[in-house]
Amino acid sequence: MVLPDFSNIKKAHKLISAQIHRTPVLTSKSINAIIGGELYFKCENFQKVGAFKFRGASNAVLSLPNELASKGIATHSSGNHAAALALAARMRGISAYVVMPKNAPEIKVRAVEGYGATITFCEPTLAARELTLAKVIAETGATEIHPYNNFQVIAGQGTAAKELLEDYPQINQLLCPVGGGGLLSGTALAVKALSPGASVIACEPAGADDAYRSFYGDRIFPSEDPCTIADGLLTSLGTMNYAIIRNNVDAVVTVSEESIVKAMRTIWERMKIIIEPSAAVPFAAILERKIDVSGKKTGIIFSGGNVDLNKLPF
Amino acid sequence: MVLPDFSNIKKAHKLISAQIHRTPVLTSKSINAIIGGELYFKCENFQKVGAFKFRGASNAVLSLPNELASKGIATHSSGNHAAALALAARMRGISAYVVMPKNAPEIKVRAVEGYGATITFCEPTLAARELTLAKVIAETGATEIHPYNNFQVIAGQGTAAKELLEDYPQINQLLCPVGGGGLLSGTALAVKALSPGASVIACEPAGADDAYRSFYGDRIFPSEDPCTIADGLLTSLGTMNYAIIRNNVDAVVTVSEESIVKAMRTIWERMKIIIEPSAAVPFAAILERKIDVSGKKTGIIFSGGNVDLNKLPF
Repeated sequence: MVLPDFSNIKKAHKLISAQIHRTPVLTSKSINAIIGGELYFKCENFQKVGAFKFRGASNAVLSLPNELASKGIATHSSGNHAAALALAARMRGISAYVVMPKNAPEIKVRAVEGYGATITFCEPTLAARELTLAKVIAETGATEIHPYNNFQVIAGQGTAAKELLEDYPQINQLLCPVGGGGLLSGTALAVKALSPGASVIACEPAGADDAYRSFYGDRIFPSEDPCTIADGLLTSLGTMNYAIIRNNVDAVVTVSEESIVKAMRTIWERMKIIIEPSAAVPFAAILERKIDVSGKKTGIIFSGGNVDLNKLPF
Repeated sequence: MVLPDFSNIKKAHKLISAQIHRTPVLTSKSINAIIGGELYFKCENFQKVGAFKFRGASNAVLSLPNELASKGIATHSSGNHAAALALAARMRGISAYVVMPKNAPEIKVRAVEGYGATITFCEPTLAARELTLAKVIAETGATEIHPYNNFQVIAGQGTAAKELLEDYPQINQLLCPVGGGGLLSGTALAVKALSPGASVIACEPAGADDAYRSFYGDRIFPSEDPCTIADGLLTSLGTMNYAIIRNNVDAVVTVSEESIVKAMRTIWERMKIIIEPSAAVPFAAILERKIDVSGKKTGIIFSGGNVDLNKLPF
C-alpha cells in the first residue's frame, strides 16, 4: 500500500490552489471565554460546495493524466463528495458519473445535477451501489475516485490543515472530525510535518465510534448501524486512512449527540456562521471537557456547512 | 434641529474604531449568478453583540463628557440597542440602566444582564416604558441614549457604510433596511459624501411600511400595527432620521414576508452565514426585482445576525 506523505500535500496544494478557496480562519472572544482556551477555526464551511471535500476531489481530478481524464471520473455517494467531484470535473471539462441511492435527498440530487454530473440511481444498499458503479465504469471507462480511501484525495484534504498552520504556526493541538478518515489522515500528515510537537486529536460521535474502536484496537472495526446526527461521519475507516491515522494521530475521543447539537447551536449563535453537525463534533468534545484547551492554542477544522434547514435539531 | 453630517461620521469612526470590529465585506459567486449582478455584503452580523447597533451605542457612550458619563446612560429597549449600549457602557466603565417590558424574551434579558446593565421591568406598553425610563433617569441622573433619533447614534451607524465604501469605492448603489432610520440616515450621509454619484435605496417590509409612506408623503407617518418577521424594523422613523432620509435617500421599496424568508434562507444556504430577517430585506427586494442590479455594483448592509433558533421560519 503506497501512502501519501507531506510532499504529496504540498504538490496537491500547488495543483488545486487556483480553484479552491483559501478559507478564512476565524476566532471568537466569546467562544474562548466560554471554554477558557484559544481556538482557531478553519472555515471549510466556506469552501466551494460547502465542505473540505472539494479539496480532495479537485486534487484527484486534476492529478489524472489526460488519457484517463478524457473518459471521466465516477463515484457512488449521496453526499458532499459527489457534489465536490461533479464540480471539479466540470472545472476540468470532463464527465462525472455519480451513482446515487434512489432515496437520496432531492436537494442533494439537484446539487449534483446542477454541477452537470450524470446520475445513475440504484437501490439504497451498499451492494447495489458498488454493483451499479462497476457497471457504469465498465461502460464508460471512467476512473473511480473513492471519497476517502484514495491517495490523491487524502493529499488534497491535507491542504486545509497546511493552510491553517501556515496562518497560525503557534497552534499546538489540532482537532478534526473523523468519518471515513479522509480529512483526518490528510490533516495528521500535515500537522506532523509542519508542527511535529503539536498533537492531533480525532473527534467522533459515540453513536458511530468505529474509528475509536479501530484506533485503540488492532484492526479496522467497521461502522455498524451508526446512529448520529453527524451525517458526514457514518462511514467506516479506509485502509489507507487507518494506516496513516494509527501512525500520526495522538488520540480519538467520542461525544454524545446532545453535545453535538449544543456545540452546533453555540457556534451558530455566537459566531453567526453555519456549520453542519459533523463539523461541530470537535467543539462538542471541548464542551464535554474531553479535551483540555486551557493554556493551549487549539485549531479546529470546521469541515462543512451543508445542513437541510427543514430538518434542524432545534 | 442640529443634524450630523459626514464630519461627525469621521469623528465617530476615530472614536470607536478601537472597540468595534471592522467587519468583513463578503461576496458570493453563486448569489451573483442567481441575481445577475455584483453584490458586496457588509457583514454587521459579525459586529459585537451581533448587530450594527454597537457602532452607534459606542459613539454615543464615548462622546459623553466625563461628568455626564459618570452618572451612567439609560434607554428603554427590548432589542439589540439595549445589549449594544450595555456593552459600550461596560467598556467605558459606567453604569447602564435599561428599561425592558416584562414580557421581553428571556434570551434578550439575559444578554443585557450579561453585559452588566441594571434592568428595570415595566408593563409592555410604550407609555409605561417612557414613564419608567423617566423615573430611572430622575433617580440616577443618567443620560438617555435613544436607539436611533440621536445625533451620535446616527453618526456611529454611518461608519459601517464608510468602511464599505473605503473597501469598495466602485460601489454605485447601496441598499439598507429601514426601521427607525438610524442605520439608514447614517448610511445615506456616508454614501452622499464619499460616493455622491451612488444611489441609496431603503428597503422595508410591506407589513411595516411607515418609512415608505413617510418618504413619499409630506410628514412622518407612524408605524401602526406593524406585522413582519423583520423584528428590527417595527419602529417609526425619528425626526432627525426623517430629515436626513428625505434629503439623502433616493428611493424606498417594500417587500413581502415571503420574500424576506426566501432571501434569508438563500443567504444562509449559499453563504453559510446567519443573518436575521431584518438584514435579509434588501436582498429580498433584489429577489422581487424591485431593484435593478444588472451591470451595477451593489452594496448591502447585513444589519445583524441575532435570531432565535427556536423560532425559525423554516
